[in-house]
Amino acid sequence: MNSVWGINNPKLKALDCTIRDGGLINGHYFSVDFVRALYQANIAAGVDYMELGYKNSSKMFSPDENGPWKFCKEDDLRKIVGDNPTGMKLSCMIDAAKSDWKTDVLPKSQSPLDLIRVAFYHYQTDEAIAMIEDAYEKGYDVSANLMAVTTVSESILDSILERLTRTPASVFVIVDSFGSITLPQMEYLTKKYFEFANPVGKEVGVHAHNNLQLAFANTLVAASCGATRLDATLSGLGRGAGNCPMELMLGMVNADKYNLRPLYECLEQQIVPLRREIEWGPYPEFIITGQHNVHPRAAIGARKDKDTRDQYVSFYDQLEEEKRAAEM
Amino acid sequence: MNSVWGINNPKLKALDCTIRDGGLINGHYFSVDFVRALYQANIAAGVDYMELGYKNSSKMFSPDENGPWKFCKEDDLRKIVGDNPTGMKLSCMIDAAKSDWKTDVLPKSQSPLDLIRVAFYHYQTDEAIAMIEDAYEKGYDVSANLMAVTTVSESILDSILERLTRTPASVFVIVDSFGSITLPQMEYLTKKYFEFANPVGKEVGVHAHNNLQLAFANTLVAASCGATRLDATLSGLGRGAGNCPMELMLGMVNADKYNLRPLYECLEQQIVPLRREIEWGPYPEFIITGQHNVHPRAAIGARKDKDTRDQYVSFYDQLEEEKRAAEM
Repeated sequence: MNSVWGINNPKLKALDCTIRDGGLINGHYFSVDFVRALYQANIAAGVDYMELGYKNSSKMFSPDENGPWKFCKEDDLRKIVGDNPTGMKLSCMIDAAKSDWKTDVLPKSQSPLDLIRVAFYHYQTDEAIAMIEDAYEKGYDVSANLMAVTTVSESILDSILERLTRTPASVFVIVDSFGSITLPQMEYLTKKYFEFANPVGKEVGVHAHNNLQLAFANTLVAASCGATRLDATLSGLGRGAGNCPMELMLGMVNADKYNLRPLYECLEQQIVPLRREIEWGPYPEFIITGQHNVHPRAAIGARKDKDTRDQYVSFYDQLEEEKRAAEM
Repeated sequence: MNSVWGINNPKLKALDCTIRDGGLINGHYFSVDFVRALYQANIAAGVDYMELGYKNSSKMFSPDENGPWKFCKEDDLRKIVGDNPTGMKLSCMIDAAKSDWKTDVLPKSQSPLDLIRVAFYHYQTDEAIAMIEDAYEKGYDVSANLMAVTTVSESILDSILERLTRTPASVFVIVDSFGSITLPQMEYLTKKYFEFANPVGKEVGVHAHNNLQLAFANTLVAASCGATRLDATLSGLGRGAGNCPMELMLGMVNADKYNLRPLYECLEQQIVPLRREIEWGPYPEFIITGQHNVHPRAAIGARKDKDTRDQYVSFYDQLEEEKRAAEM
């Protein structure tokens, strides 16, 4: 499995966030059977962490219009994992400004979750730090996931990373929300995050998107530059262009430790039928938003129905016009 | 367009081989309209070279069962390019053991072609060198494309590269036929090819396949390590998992020099309808052959009809069994 040229480092941990990121496509309406099949496949493959969704606010997001994995109520989690009597750790993500984290994150003793991942934009750093401290005090391992890092200026990024060093977050994740990060840029960012995180005993993680077909490559680059927490999703299932595919990552990262067969089994049984219902992947509209370093929402809109998708030239012209307007 | 983090080097040349490699999917039955649209899009985009197909033997391959771009007869070429009164150069590929190169490659004065690319396996090096010399003497620029480099031992590879330095080939192309090359391996190979090629005034090229979703990344790695001739195909159209997509490459390699809009136009008008007829891309079967460093033919066979495709587990088991048998 390319183990000669692969990456071997016992500190590396793989985190499956298929349900959480893939849920952004289908309103987090995965069936219990789907989530359970993925949970069991991840355990059999040796995946280190599985993220089951968001704990987002049910006041802001209607439970009538969103599936259970948008909220990850403890009862729903236990339908899948019970008390999670396995070696695989579990996580949920909470979003700054979109979560009732004070009430919805229960004390660790009342939950099968191990890790809380705090997602925030740079202008939400104050709330994010409060969220990190709250989750840590409740007994969880905590991850700080600054989103859309490619839109943050160097000086602001440095100041946020410096502030994070003084929080109890154990890992800082490089989040390429727009899928626009290039290979040397990922190397640069990983080394920067590492320089802040490592001296205070924290780790660096990476969460890639595949707009430029670089999600797997960027994950490998990050892993070779000091990142030890690697996000991936089965078949790359994730919003827009999708993510780093787990079945690729585990074939090249600590390949002797993981077992690919259960992943291919889950791919065959669960992903093949799902692909008939929803789409994800580096379609040209997502390439174009990635090339312009903007949020994929315009591409998601353009591909929403069959009458508007695949009109690449008008979509390209629209983004070029917006770029020129922004430069004026 | 990420030009800050992109690769800028005036020596870099982009070669479109959509018709040649994509033709391996559809028996080289592209319509004149399709090839002409791509030719015009490439010119408008500023692509440096376009490969129109193979000049393969019409004694070995029946013209009744193969399209015109399998043979690239001069009359068929001229239907598309006339005398090619453009700045874009044209190439054809000839295959060792599959081409009547002595007769089918005409003197340069009788052809619009500029470049002949010689494809060969390591055990065909003697014929390949004769082919290189013949094409050079006829007046062409010549490229040496050793296929399936991942199956060649280091000492044999060194000896072939050393022999190629004494030929009139102006470029040696790293060919990842199985799509199994990893990023550090591509760096290693590029530096090796460069060490042979550069002192004798020759260039290095790269031809990637996308089994592990690394075709674009590997092309970028090669370009940053000294490769200056970069193969790509529109929408990655190529055998099996496909190739490095041109629309990605030109957004990050000399991005200010090229124009993406004509490529998106050709994608919209020509590739969208083609995708309804034939498939290519990193489907799991191609990932699995890439992970096992074997030719994609078994994957192509497995995906050939709807009754056998998407049975990933049995396909994975089959390749694992073959691997164990080969190791015994």
